[in-house]
Amino acid sequence: MPLSSLTQLLHHALQTADYGQEPPELYDPVRYIMALGGKRVRPLLVLLGAHLYADDVTAVAPAALAVEIFHNFTLVHDDLMDAAPLRRGQPTVHHRWNPNTAILSGDVMLVRAYEQLFRHVPDQHLRRALALFSTCAAEVCEGQQLDMVFETLTDVTVADYLRMIRLKTAVLLGFALELGGILQGATDADAAHLRAFGEGVGVAFQLRDDLLDVYGDAATFGKQVGGDILAAKKTFLLLTAQQQLPPADQAQLAALLAATDLASAEKVSRVTALYDQVQIRPQTEALIERTYADALAHLDAVSVAAARKITLRHLTDELMDRAS
Amino acid sequence: MPLSSLTQLLHHALQTADYGQEPPELYDPVRYIMALGGKRVRPLLVLLGAHLYADDVTAVAPAALAVEIFHNFTLVHDDLMDAAPLRRGQPTVHHRWNPNTAILSGDVMLVRAYEQLFRHVPDQHLRRALALFSTCAAEVCEGQQLDMVFETLTDVTVADYLRMIRLKTAVLLGFALELGGILQGATDADAAHLRAFGEGVGVAFQLRDDLLDVYGDAATFGKQVGGDILAAKKTFLLLTAQQQLPPADQAQLAALLAATDLASAEKVSRVTALYDQVQIRPQTEALIERTYADALAHLDAVSVAAARKITLRHLTDELMDRAS
Repeated sequence: MPLSSLTQLLHHALQTADYGQEPPELYDPVRYIMALGGKRVRPLLVLLGAHLYADDVTAVAPAALAVEIFHNFTLVHDDLMDAAPLRRGQPTVHHRWNPNTAILSGDVMLVRAYEQLFRHVPDQHLRRALALFSTCAAEVCEGQQLDMVFETLTDVTVADYLRMIRLKTAVLLGFALELGGILQGATDADAAHLRAFGEGVGVAFQLRDDLLDVYGDAATFGKQVGGDILAAKKTFLLLTAQQQLPPADQAQLAALLAATDLASAEKVSRVTALYDQVQIRPQTEALIERTYADALAHLDAVSVAAARKITLRHLTDELMDRAS
Repeated sequence: MPLSSLTQLLHHALQTADYGQEPPELYDPVRYIMALGGKRVRPLLVLLGAHLYADDVTAVAPAALAVEIFHNFTLVHDDLMDAAPLRRGQPTVHHRWNPNTAILSGDVMLVRAYEQLFRHVPDQHLRRALALFSTCAAEVCEGQQLDMVFETLTDVTVADYLRMIRLKTAVLLGFALELGGILQGATDADAAHLRAFGEGVGVAFQLRDDLLDVYGDAATFGKQVGGDILAAKKTFLLLTAQQQLPPADQAQLAALLAATDLASAEKVSRVTALYDQVQIRPQTEALIERTYADALAHLDAVSVAAARKITLRHLTDELMDRAS
């Protein structure tokens, strides 16, 4: 099965998914967010994890759908918590409907994600799949809570930040790959390598997102460049700069981030200048490369022929924006 | 096992439950709401449903805990959606912490409820328990959504209202009893009767709550008498009065409910007078009696000796405030 077949399999699962009908006020938002699109990375990882061990992964499609429903549940609730007006250029659920609808439609999505999983996973894998999914789901909640807690703390470390993005973002990618693998008979050792690979990709991808937020091309990034700076978000970039700048510049950085009388572009360019002073961009790029390289070592260790890994590697290289 | 032993079993399960530790900002609210108490009716129904078929129901305690965690998840999210400041006389989670914490701690409770269920239910019952739980969970979301939708509609019927309270409140009681039963080997026929009994008790109990909101004794009811009238909540009482009053009184009722220049006590007493005019109290009491009697016919039909049903019957009679 080439990637296009996997994409088509996933597309079919999404098209034919039945989330529920009545009342429409509950299920219309579910259909809306699920139809908004996106790269569908997580369900593709489920299929690609399975595809390492089997040519036909049709049976794994419901599990892939479960992961995509879960991911979209987190988007609906996170967008509400973050008061984000837009998602993929369209109004968020709480914005198009209202906050209560976002809460409740999100809740029912979590139920539907579990349903997709337990209805279709064979007996011999059921408890393990449910256990891994639940651990992952709780960790994603823990990560989102840490992200919110960090907004109010002044002593967040780089290690804290890396732990937070691992929970909030990376564990779901690790789970997706591992789930696909075990559903097609991956050994315990392979499953652990797949999880570690997925988590590493997730951390590297989030760091790359943070980097592009400051150093990306506005035209291709798809978000406002400098948004994290304007929100004083404690990313790897900011935390590293805070740590490495000389005291006088640290104070200036803090003052800039807190300033309310500066034009946005001015604020972004002056903070970026401070970042440049301590080489934040190359430092971040180096960490991304190192994280991705460590992750790839886990993919290498998975006990299937290298040829079977090509499609998966192609997808993660693309995520990292590297030609493969 | 007498009721006191079942209560103790449940108490022990609640005391030793581990919802998670880090970050405390996520799990403290879970421990808080789970410790607020209440009658623990739903988990007791799980144990009592099981107790129809077995003397020792210790093995069913985790399933009972799952149902109580789920119930408290709905309380956390519903209280937020309803902007309720108090729950059992204590600050609600969103009030004591904040709305985002209520969303996220609620989310992780739903995950923990599933975990309690699938970790402890034996293989032969696992898929059925998960399917019943998920159907019930989605229905509870549907009922809450209908409840919110009804606030904005002018043409809600009594049938709509009964359907809404069945989903929002009653299906969980039906599920609780059925779950306990099937975990101890209830036949399909018995399981259906247990579900129908629990749902009937749930509908009757909600109607009784609506009745007490208007006609209850403020000292024993524990909530503000007339709260539903002040909120113009479309209960069985209001919908029936709207239907049965002569047109002129219908208009007066609508005007009273919309009035913003009336003292609360005055508004409640004048609406109650209109209710009395068309015998709303005896009509509601009759419906409660009929609903409970229909439910009891299902309990009678459950194929175990009458003596085994005494404790369960005692609990539901108590819920209905009838000596048993």
